Amino acid sequence: MKVFERITEFRNEINEHKRNGRTIGFVPTMGYLHEGHLSLIEKARAENDIVVVSIFVNPLQFGPAEDYDSYPRDLGHDKGIAEKAGADYIFAPSVPEMYPTPPSVTATVKERTDVLCGKSRPGHFDGVATVLTKLFNIVLPDKAYFGQKDAQQVAVIEGLIKDFNFPVKLVPVETVREEDGLAKSSRNVFLTSAERKEATALHESLIAARAAIENGNRDPETIIELMKKIIETRTSGKIDYIEIYTYPELKPIDVLEGRFIIALAVRFSAARLIDNMLFDV
Amino acid sequence: MKVFERITEFRNEINEHKRNGRTIGFVPTMGYLHEGHLSLIEKARAENDIVVVSIFVNPLQFGPAEDYDSYPRDLGHDKGIAEKAGADYIFAPSVPEMYPTPPSVTATVKERTDVLCGKSRPGHFDGVATVLTKLFNIVLPDKAYFGQKDAQQVAVIEGLIKDFNFPVKLVPVETVREEDGLAKSSRNVFLTSAERKEATALHESLIAARAAIENGNRDPETIIELMKKIIETRTSGKIDYIEIYTYPELKPIDVLEGRFIIALAVRFSAARLIDNMLFDV
Repeated sequence: MKVFERITEFRNEINEHKRNGRTIGFVPTMGYLHEGHLSLIEKARAENDIVVVSIFVNPLQFGPAEDYDSYPRDLGHDKGIAEKAGADYIFAPSVPEMYPTPPSVTATVKERTDVLCGKSRPGHFDGVATVLTKLFNIVLPDKAYFGQKDAQQVAVIEGLIKDFNFPVKLVPVETVREEDGLAKSSRNVFLTSAERKEATALHESLIAARAAIENGNRDPETIIELMKKIIETRTSGKIDYIEIYTYPELKPIDVLEGRFIIALAVRFSAARLIDNMLFDV
Repeated sequence: MKVFERITEFRNEINEHKRNGRTIGFVPTMGYLHEGHLSLIEKARAENDIVVVSIFVNPLQFGPAEDYDSYPRDLGHDKGIAEKAGADYIFAPSVPEMYPTPPSVTATVKERTDVLCGKSRPGHFDGVATVLTKLFNIVLPDKAYFGQKDAQQVAVIEGLIKDFNFPVKLVPVETVREEDGLAKSSRNVFLTSAERKEATALHESLIAARAAIENGNRDPETIIELMKKIIETRTSGKIDYIEIYTYPELKPIDVLEGRFIIALAVRFSAARLIDNMLFDV
């Protein structure tokens, strides 16, 4: 596995593979890799000749009050995980390498952003779309792998690829969970040990929702109340949102039919966790 | 020469060339090709294995009060010109092919837009940057050719390519002129015959400016006044702007030194014409 920090040098390497007709699988990350990322890398490994993992904590997608500075970073650790999972390259540019000057052109996301996490993170998905546009143009992937855990991000990137006509296929990958059901996340390290135990209630509230829906409940409000009760009773966290939308359009839904998503975000003392479940009823 | 209207079919053709390592030169146009375009196509022909001309009147870059509907279109004529100049492909998609739904993600240009033509065309360069992002991702060019006549556009696209990391080299091509000096433009057909004669004053005002600068004049205001007088005396047109900026940054300039641009726009009864001259003093 090779690690590149400079765009020009990495491009040369990529161009060589493109000339030889090799397919490129791309896993964009902000680093601090965990088993969730590992499953993305392994899937990319199984489906492509070359696997690129990018590690870049993108300042453009963090709000001023968000955790850009404290976002965990550990390139040494990440190298081990990426190599073990079968990556051929880590592309880990510095901020000045990616943004030598404040960008004069950025991507603006106009739909699917005013719900779920987007609502409380204005500009977040513009930052995501901008950095992915840059990374797609540097890595030139055939397929790009994203965790379904960040379902809104997957929906937005679906729009980015379609609207900008990127010759890239998006591959969503199922959420990887701890044994007790908590979705893997780089931010889980910020939970206190008490919060870590409580946090299992997030996934369990989704399981309870699924059971209710399987039992014929089709009312979004009832499902949301049910989940709210579970999370409020069993955790010290503060619910940011529990919402249900059509998927991938992320439009409001009155009766739980067709493809939809139940998604939630809960704020603990030093970490905000998200989880979701997709349905096709 | 082949003509494609569908993205998917055109992509297959392009991919075949990419696989064979052929270089692609790209001339994006809005059609109604004239000798200005011809010089772009010829230059692309001389420098690349494959030459693609796109013809697409992009609704996104026209304001509500602008001439989108009346913009001249003549695909039959364009085919003749493009083939004669050596193009291998015309890519001429329909509006629904390029925008099957209103785009959920667009490009936003944050610099170099509040001067020259951009000032009176809010959103224009966002539309240009968005459609070029799409076209670059479809055509996958090595080099893209743009007329220096639209100098602000060249400066904005320079920013687009750099900030989105497109693996594309921008090639600016000198303005092609009629024998009497008028810059070639698809919009010249809208001039009355009286206006057509007057319009030579635009280029002549730039020549007068150059002479003054060569004689040691370094004051932007004096130069602008000199040009204003020529255009106001000799034409019935209304001056939209005569402005001088550093190039390609398009920042204000106090003393005429270094690289700068003098640019003008004049509104006639049914056509707004632009012209400019680059200096390196």
